Amino acid sequence: MNEPNQIPNWLMKRAYLTPDRPAIIFRNERLTFRQLFERAKTFAEKLHYTGVQKGDRVGVLLNNQLDTVVLLHSLQLLGCQTVLLNIRLQDEELLFQLEDSEAMILISNESLLIEHRKLQDVWIDRLITLEQLRKRAQRSVPVVEQFSMDELCTIMYTSGTTGHPKGVLQTYGNHWWSAAGSLLNLGLHEQDVWLCAVPLFHISGFSILVRSVLYGIPIRLYEKFDEKQINRVLISGKATIISVVTAMVQRLLHELGDRSYHPNFRCMLIGGGKVPLPLLKTCKEKGIPVFQTYGMTETASQIATLSPEHSLTKLGSAGKPLFFSEIKIIKERKWANSNEFGEIYVKGPNVTKGYWKREDANRENFTEDGWLKTGDIGYMDEEGFLYIIDRRTDLIISGGENIYPAEIEQVILTHPAVKEVAVVGISDKQWGEVPVAFYVVKEGVHVEEKTLDDLCRTHLAKYKVPKRWIRKDELPKNASNKILRRLLKKGTDPA
Amino acid sequence: MNEPNQIPNWLMKRAYLTPDRPAIIFRNERLTFRQLFERAKTFAEKLHYTGVQKGDRVGVLLNNQLDTVVLLHSLQLLGCQTVLLNIRLQDEELLFQLEDSEAMILISNESLLIEHRKLQDVWIDRLITLEQLRKRAQRSVPVVEQFSMDELCTIMYTSGTTGHPKGVLQTYGNHWWSAAGSLLNLGLHEQDVWLCAVPLFHISGFSILVRSVLYGIPIRLYEKFDEKQINRVLISGKATIISVVTAMVQRLLHELGDRSYHPNFRCMLIGGGKVPLPLLKTCKEKGIPVFQTYGMTETASQIATLSPEHSLTKLGSAGKPLFFSEIKIIKERKWANSNEFGEIYVKGPNVTKGYWKREDANRENFTEDGWLKTGDIGYMDEEGFLYIIDRRTDLIISGGENIYPAEIEQVILTHPAVKEVAVVGISDKQWGEVPVAFYVVKEGVHVEEKTLDDLCRTHLAKYKVPKRWIRKDELPKNASNKILRRLLKKGTDPA
Repeated sequence: MNEPNQIPNWLMKRAYLTPDRPAIIFRNERLTFRQLFERAKTFAEKLHYTGVQKGDRVGVLLNNQLDTVVLLHSLQLLGCQTVLLNIRLQDEELLFQLEDSEAMILISNESLLIEHRKLQDVWIDRLITLEQLRKRAQRSVPVVEQFSMDELCTIMYTSGTTGHPKGVLQTYGNHWWSAAGSLLNLGLHEQDVWLCAVPLFHISGFSILVRSVLYGIPIRLYEKFDEKQINRVLISGKATIISVVTAMVQRLLHELGDRSYHPNFRCMLIGGGKVPLPLLKTCKEKGIPVFQTYGMTETASQIATLSPEHSLTKLGSAGKPLFFSEIKIIKERKWANSNEFGEIYVKGPNVTKGYWKREDANRENFTEDGWLKTGDIGYMDEEGFLYIIDRRTDLIISGGENIYPAEIEQVILTHPAVKEVAVVGISDKQWGEVPVAFYVVKEGVHVEEKTLDDLCRTHLAKYKVPKRWIRKDELPKNASNKILRRLLKKGTDPA
Repeated sequence: MNEPNQIPNWLMKRAYLTPDRPAIIFRNERLTFRQLFERAKTFAEKLHYTGVQKGDRVGVLLNNQLDTVVLLHSLQLLGCQTVLLNIRLQDEELLFQLEDSEAMILISNESLLIEHRKLQDVWIDRLITLEQLRKRAQRSVPVVEQFSMDELCTIMYTSGTTGHPKGVLQTYGNHWWSAAGSLLNLGLHEQDVWLCAVPLFHISGFSILVRSVLYGIPIRLYEKFDEKQINRVLISGKATIISVVTAMVQRLLHELGDRSYHPNFRCMLIGGGKVPLPLLKTCKEKGIPVFQTYGMTETASQIATLSPEHSLTKLGSAGKPLFFSEIKIIKERKWANSNEFGEIYVKGPNVTKGYWKREDANRENFTEDGWLKTGDIGYMDEEGFLYIIDRRTDLIISGGENIYPAEIEQVILTHPAVKEVAVVGISDKQWGEVPVAFYVVKEGVHVEEKTLDDLCRTHLAKYKVPKRWIRKDELPKNASNKILRRLLKKGTDPA
């Protein structure tokens, strides 16, 4: 006699429940939940005047700013599906995603479009800027009061290290269950403020937007990551939770120096790949409340997180799956034993239903009983703590032995002179593939190849030791700051 | 590709996620979540040995103690449906509920059964005591790893002021959504401890059991409500949340005297009926973090709660509906305006699907679009805050005017000599019904009828002033401590 498959429009309900609480803080502007709802409703009416209808798919190419949050909510009020576009992409990549997703309209702003002449040319008839939208007239439109759990809320394209990017389908249910699982892990304090300096077009940022309205806590939003500014906020206690990736932690710690954070700062969620152990140890020493996480666009934010009580004893682990999610390790089609490496499979109501119009990828990446094969390699210890080892696509197979680049990289990174390293497999007549190390040395420091080679020989089986050492000034990275191992491979002649 | 209609077995998942956190504290005993799970599993295997099967309906007649919590979880591990019986009931009432619910077996303990000879006689073949169970052998049995949201978890009978008691069906989904809605309202701190001195057989206590495993926080359980003991705990900071009813608050405050509670004590959830304004004011003065709530067995615990930020400005309100729930006021079949009295309708995934085998009551109490008619009278102010006025069944209709006893009682209670009062309607030739006041005076104090009559005349329209004043030494109450207005009516000759 009730509809458990629906949840209230989260912004609308939040604006009714706690209208006067702060919802968003950006530069010198602040909006309460009531104001955020009212502005989102105004935007919805302007969009409706422009011809946008319920069910339309709408591309959004925007940087982090107050009106981006307003717009994203307004699209939900209208019942549109939002295609979130990475502003670091090139025209052709954007055009692919807009066409592939069958977006009806593209919303962006003038300053971003300057760099996208081609996109402008192609989408001229279906393009609207925030600047134009603000000036539009309004047409009243009924807002969506209930979200169906199965309804598509957002599409985000995965960075696509191989082949064309795929549109990850994220339902309202995916976002809700992700927020619920995280809530049971992180708790919720009345004075919580979530600092968002990660892009709203990535799941890391978008999930903060969702949690803000569900939890009733403000987002402190930043357009760019500025370690000085963010340290100032965390030292003053004006934010209690922050989502970061490894590179940000390094910059924050460096800038922080001998100072320390406010006691109210209770959670630094680190996602987006492996975190070097030395970095985690430094955080521990400085009393920084680090929560290492594992997640991806397909899991609507983190699916595993290391609980505070284990942050010392399980250093380097991504923790256990969140309350509603499951993780298993599969090795040669069977469940792996404890401490045995294998592919990470994930399941849960936060996991995507699949990729947009990619039945091939869906068949390939999902099991019949609903597990998503992540392609990542990891293991679980006896107590069920997850450790991420590597991306499967980076696996090097040499003379029948599996080599996980991360294992080698971790060893090389223990040398104080090494700033960055990537180990990739290159083809070899004798062994099929052999590992080769590309490394970047810290400024003003010197290190001999022989020293690094010795280091590896001391800690690793012989077949894992890189066969060649190639020094670089920097490593090639994609828009999401992931190292492009593919490019490294290409740039090397077979040994 | 996932099953959003299932959630993990909450105890099992919790024991996996945070095995070493405390789960329950009772007298000198403590169990971690791992220990609680292991003991519940042992009990499940003993029950299985005894012949209890998945899907069986099991009656439980137990007071608050450690093994009651263990047993209730073991029944969930087995996939049984639990009929929770009120230990204050008489044999015939218990027999009715056991038969009506078609329970296969009854679990109780020796000390309780002493007072229930007749129950023992009738159920001798289907009765097992905790004492016997502990000594039983075990038979291994697969535990239920996933709960379906639609699956029946518990049945609780409503006190039934009119007609036979009705079994309220509570699904796993009802309990989960109740816990989720409350979580978004109350937040969750790592050091939270929920004090439970309310019966586990009522939704007030059972909901704490569910929240403990979902939230990962311990229950501090008490067999009886002892204000001295509980004040000691709240002063020391060993509990952060407590669920109480009005009468308990009065006793706590009286015993507390000039002392004050620990700053970690952050939430006193007051449910189970109206709370007198003077009591709320005293709490405010003493800095007690009061959350007034509205809820019932049918809503699997509170469905509305007054948020902390409004506790001062909206004194006396039960707050707003929780995140996933809705409340509306219906007057003469239409939505009431703000501040207009009417019947309270509720809806949401926490609301029962209906009464066990009572199609008549289901038809009568639910609308076609899934609203439950609570029978309670209230109003919502302009901002959507709910105020509970009365139970509809107590409505007095006099000369075509609606009279809400609570309104009159509230006035009478402002007199310092009055301890308790109940206003009921008795039949009257001229007006149909007239209000009559039954009142109890505080010990050692005296008050004239004339004084009370004048008080009412000063504050109330003439037709609302009680036509008779009947002084009593005490007012008749049922097992749930509700005043039995019916009995008061019966004891009075028509005026």
